[in-house]
Amino acid sequence: MMKVALLGAGRIGQVHARAITAHSDSELVAVTDVVTAAAEALASTHGIEVRTLDEILADPSIDAVLIATSTDTHSDLIERATAAGKAVLCEKPVDLSLDRALACQARTSASGQPIMIGFNRRFDPNFAALKAALDAGEIGKPELLSITSFDPAPPPVAYVKVSGGLFRDMTIHDFDMACWMMGGAPAGVMAVGASLVDPGIGAAGDVDTAVVTLSWADGRIAVIKNSRRAGYGYDQRLEVLGSKGLLQAENVLENTLTRMTEAGSLRAKPLHFFLERYMRAYELEWAAFLDAWRNKTPMPVTLSDGIRALACAEAATRSQRSGEAVALTPEMMGR
Amino acid sequence: MMKVALLGAGRIGQVHARAITAHSDSELVAVTDVVTAAAEALASTHGIEVRTLDEILADPSIDAVLIATSTDTHSDLIERATAAGKAVLCEKPVDLSLDRALACQARTSASGQPIMIGFNRRFDPNFAALKAALDAGEIGKPELLSITSFDPAPPPVAYVKVSGGLFRDMTIHDFDMACWMMGGAPAGVMAVGASLVDPGIGAAGDVDTAVVTLSWADGRIAVIKNSRRAGYGYDQRLEVLGSKGLLQAENVLENTLTRMTEAGSLRAKPLHFFLERYMRAYELEWAAFLDAWRNKTPMPVTLSDGIRALACAEAATRSQRSGEAVALTPEMMGR
Amino acid sequence: MMKVALLGAGRIGQVHARAITAHSDSELVAVTDVVTAAAEALASTHGIEVRTLDEILADPSIDAVLIATSTDTHSDLIERATAAGKAVLCEKPVDLSLDRALACQARTSASGQPIMIGFNRRFDPNFAALKAALDAGEIGKPELLSITSFDPAPPPVAYVKVSGGLFRDMTIHDFDMACWMMGGAPAGVMAVGASLVDPGIGAAGDVDTAVVTLSWADGRIAVIKNSRRAGYGYDQRLEVLGSKGLLQAENVLENTLTRMTEAGSLRAKPLHFFLERYMRAYELEWAAFLDAWRNKTPMPVTLSDGIRALACAEAATRSQRSGEAVALTPEMMGR
Amino acid sequence: MMKVALLGAGRIGQVHARAITAHSDSELVAVTDVVTAAAEALASTHGIEVRTLDEILADPSIDAVLIATSTDTHSDLIERATAAGKAVLCEKPVDLSLDRALACQARTSASGQPIMIGFNRRFDPNFAALKAALDAGEIGKPELLSITSFDPAPPPVAYVKVSGGLFRDMTIHDFDMACWMMGGAPAGVMAVGASLVDPGIGAAGDVDTAVVTLSWADGRIAVIKNSRRAGYGYDQRLEVLGSKGLLQAENVLENTLTRMTEAGSLRAKPLHFFLERYMRAYELEWAAFLDAWRNKTPMPVTLSDGIRALACAEAATRSQRSGEAVALTPEMMGR
Repeated sequence: MMKVALLGAGRIGQVHARAITAHSDSELVAVTDVVTAAAEALASTHGIEVRTLDEILADPSIDAVLIATSTDTHSDLIERATAAGKAVLCEKPVDLSLDRALACQARTSASGQPIMIGFNRRFDPNFAALKAALDAGEIGKPELLSITSFDPAPPPVAYVKVSGGLFRDMTIHDFDMACWMMGGAPAGVMAVGASLVDPGIGAAGDVDTAVVTLSWADGRIAVIKNSRRAGYGYDQRLEVLGSKGLLQAENVLENTLTRMTEAGSLRAKPLHFFLERYMRAYELEWAAFLDAWRNKTPMPVTLSDGIRALACAEAATRSQRSGEAVALTPEMMGR
Repeated sequence: MMKVALLGAGRIGQVHARAITAHSDSELVAVTDVVTAAAEALASTHGIEVRTLDEILADPSIDAVLIATSTDTHSDLIERATAAGKAVLCEKPVDLSLDRALACQARTSASGQPIMIGFNRRFDPNFAALKAALDAGEIGKPELLSITSFDPAPPPVAYVKVSGGLFRDMTIHDFDMACWMMGGAPAGVMAVGASLVDPGIGAAGDVDTAVVTLSWADGRIAVIKNSRRAGYGYDQRLEVLGSKGLLQAENVLENTLTRMTEAGSLRAKPLHFFLERYMRAYELEWAAFLDAWRNKTPMPVTLSDGIRALACAEAATRSQRSGEAVALTPEMMGR
Repeated sequence: MMKVALLGAGRIGQVHARAITAHSDSELVAVTDVVTAAAEALASTHGIEVRTLDEILADPSIDAVLIATSTDTHSDLIERATAAGKAVLCEKPVDLSLDRALACQARTSASGQPIMIGFNRRFDPNFAALKAALDAGEIGKPELLSITSFDPAPPPVAYVKVSGGLFRDMTIHDFDMACWMMGGAPAGVMAVGASLVDPGIGAAGDVDTAVVTLSWADGRIAVIKNSRRAGYGYDQRLEVLGSKGLLQAENVLENTLTRMTEAGSLRAKPLHFFLERYMRAYELEWAAFLDAWRNKTPMPVTLSDGIRALACAEAATRSQRSGEAVALTPEMMGR
Repeated sequence: MMKVALLGAGRIGQVHARAITAHSDSELVAVTDVVTAAAEALASTHGIEVRTLDEILADPSIDAVLIATSTDTHSDLIERATAAGKAVLCEKPVDLSLDRALACQARTSASGQPIMIGFNRRFDPNFAALKAALDAGEIGKPELLSITSFDPAPPPVAYVKVSGGLFRDMTIHDFDMACWMMGGAPAGVMAVGASLVDPGIGAAGDVDTAVVTLSWADGRIAVIKNSRRAGYGYDQRLEVLGSKGLLQAENVLENTLTRMTEAGSLRAKPLHFFLERYMRAYELEWAAFLDAWRNKTPMPVTLSDGIRALACAEAATRSQRSGEAVALTPEMMGR
């Protein structure tokens, strides 16, 4: 039985709390949050204790912490938790600053503590099935990857301002997916973006619509399409062209109903909310973390993976501003 | 909080135990089973007590029983439980004998205790969405209903021998679905069947492949297609032609992956096992039972509904043997 | 080069005229019709002559006739044309009277002239692909066939009155398809029908909505669903469950467009008009007739096939009225 | 009746010859080709004359020429034909040289003769339906367009060497489609490409796999994905995200058959050959040219449109080599 403390009791922390308690081999024992009321509400729901961060880190019975706090605290908490001998599952992104994330990697590597970054989409059964088919060689060698990733509606501008920008906040998932599918980091990044959805996002210096092209040293290409708004819901699709065929993961629809009338043949929309769409992925992510911890096998998503995605975001941000391709250097990748 | 005892700790009892314990407003407190080991295993999993049936019925703190025992005990248990003041959720079918089920109805009607029959498919989100669209008039008046209901593989012949036959054991779900969708009992039933899948089923006097046509007094028609075997999984589809269009509920697939190769475009199979396919339906069924009990509203599936489906099964059995249409009489329907 | 005369210049005659002239190995040389204006219009379009039936039959240079006249003339014309040494392609049904069709068969069998009945749907590329997959054993042995065949809108009641009824006029296509797919004639027929679409059809003694169940001597089953109205267009689907899987031929849609909006995901309707849906089938039907004639191989659809479908229609008509299964006897099948 | 001469009797010339002769309001009267045997074969098929180019241009009874010769002759032939008073339908691309095409535009603009460029895909019923839905405002304002355009198999390297490169030869269609859908020329182009399919293509200095991103002055974006090889056939899809929804045009499949077996649910491949896929588009393209000529309305695809697509190809070629975004200047666009 793994004993777990939750750092951060916001929306995503609540999701993880459910996954931790639902798993038969983990037990949620404590929560902390800078917003006391949030911590207390979550503690009450799960019948656990609110404790301070120091108490949690000092408790030798706690095996692992799940970091679901604001992004600017991630690196600090990863460092403190590993120093305290805890296994860590930290939400994405590692940090808004690539330099800070690289420093975190340097400081934690000697600890030997397992660190996993929460790229939950890898655990979605549909994307996982696609990856398995790819690895099984069903379409030969992958050549051209395409990711469609549209949110149903844009976040408040206040959020956008502290988000690190579209590429670090939203595309970060797609960068990880692209590197995971293609088997490594790209050599170069080109990005185009604009503010078409909400002028306030443009005024805040960010974009809400973008296309990012990644190219690998051997010529393979990935393209990511992002929008902060899709009137029909949450659009999460991925396809890979290989030397022998194409693999596609399509959207998950609300139901299987078709209505045929004079207007045509109407099917349901994609699941609208990311928690509905990826709830199973969060459960499987937690199970994978727990399995790796128990079996002392490498974490399925590493801190290096988190840094790699962050380096892509950094490069995309620069490319979108300069209109030039930006190379990913070894320095940007850390170890 | 509803306190619940489970009668029957077999495969379907275990499913219900999970749904009961997962619901925040119900508590599973006891289980009984003629196979002591089964009861003990389930009790251990859920941390509850094994008790005798008499103990359960005598305990005034128990609000409801879920009957998941063998079909030949259903009527007795419904009668005893309602007499003991318990609300009842009983698995389908009510009974293999229509006469016995009618007697059960006569004996329990005065008790005033709520009785619900477990036609779980009504609570499947896809079929429920179709019914809602039908009731909203999206395709006008329903005229022609079609149900495709194929199992992945036939049960053992030993099971078939005590099952009451295909129409009472398997088609019973489809009869309820047809009556529910069309809004009442049919006037006549015609059935054709054969043993094509397993000669042992034929030798046991049953069929494994069948088509049943139901006709309503106003001319509307439903057709049910059944097979005990579908090489590709569990095929559960339904469509209704109305005066203005068609509604279809399609299968739920294992994932959303498509593989395009020289062979063509390959998608995943339907979910193979009925528990995977209908797990959410069992949860929603339990929630609906609990809501009706708490709010003292009519049960969403009544004992009369169970009898109506059983009468259809009786008529189909006779029609398949005689080659003639069989009328459903008021006597067959009870109250 | 096959020289062809067209008997009947109505809507379906015009379709055949186009198919005949479009084929590089056949030449349309003459047309006749009791409505002179119709014959003249068609002759003018194709630059051919209007002639009398006698002139056509007496002309030794004419190799074949295509019979597209009213159904009550089919048997006579088949007899006269074969007696005159012409190959015959005759529209369905052979006749409204099974007895008359059987007499026609008896009278023409000695002629040795090739006779093909125009069950065009066999030549639809989608149904033909399904048949090829069935014959290739892709789903093992066929067990349960299902045909959905709905017209977009009912014909005028005046037409219904002379049509021979739904089973002879509309289901006739589906009977042929069922026999072709299952490889022979059924042993018994059960039919249920009602007038739900147009009360005038009921007043005329016919039904507009029906389900027909065919059963073969070895237990295999087919079910046909018919309606004279489908608000969304022309619904033509077929599926076969076999011992190893399922084959489905789905509708042909107007285009491949999908619209995803708040309302859901909207695709186009099926092709609405039978000539659009089956135009390619008419061309391929003609090519198959011409090939068989040229190569002196058996016609792909024989007069016996036409009689078999008519016998099914006869049996369905009786069953729908009596509420009993009707057996197909050898007498009803002719040779 | 429009009298037409065909310049070029190769594969695409033969396609146009069929479309011209199939149309009831046009007559193919002559053909010319530098390969005499090709001209003679086509003339024989259609029962027309082989003439020299000079004879064709000198014949005042000829209304129009269809230019289907090698690309390097297009500009010359457009200039000569318009000077001779002929209407022109010229295959894409206008020229491999943007400068030469601009000169052609300057020299022909005074002639007043109608010139249409053969971007046949605009006339595909599926893409045309998408454009109509876009123009009708069904998804609000278009923001992000995505084109997937993969050939079944790469052409011979010898062809690639004289093709002008992937962007001028293959992407040219997609550039036109993007400009047409988005309503004007983009402001900037970024391209990434590699030779992954055939090393010979790379050795010839070209790419066979590419992603091109176009951005408009108002921020809207289009992305084009190209590959010279798709193991499953000819992949031609397009989707547009707008402020209120998404429009998708999907592939046209070989048939509507689905095979459900243990392996999954298998549908047919996309139509494999561009002539099958776009045959209807060629017919409708010809009809649109003829209508515009007859009604003296503007051509639906102008020489300016051809130059616009060529300017995109030029910019993409430069961007792919330099790794920088390339702006489209007014000079590149001509008038």
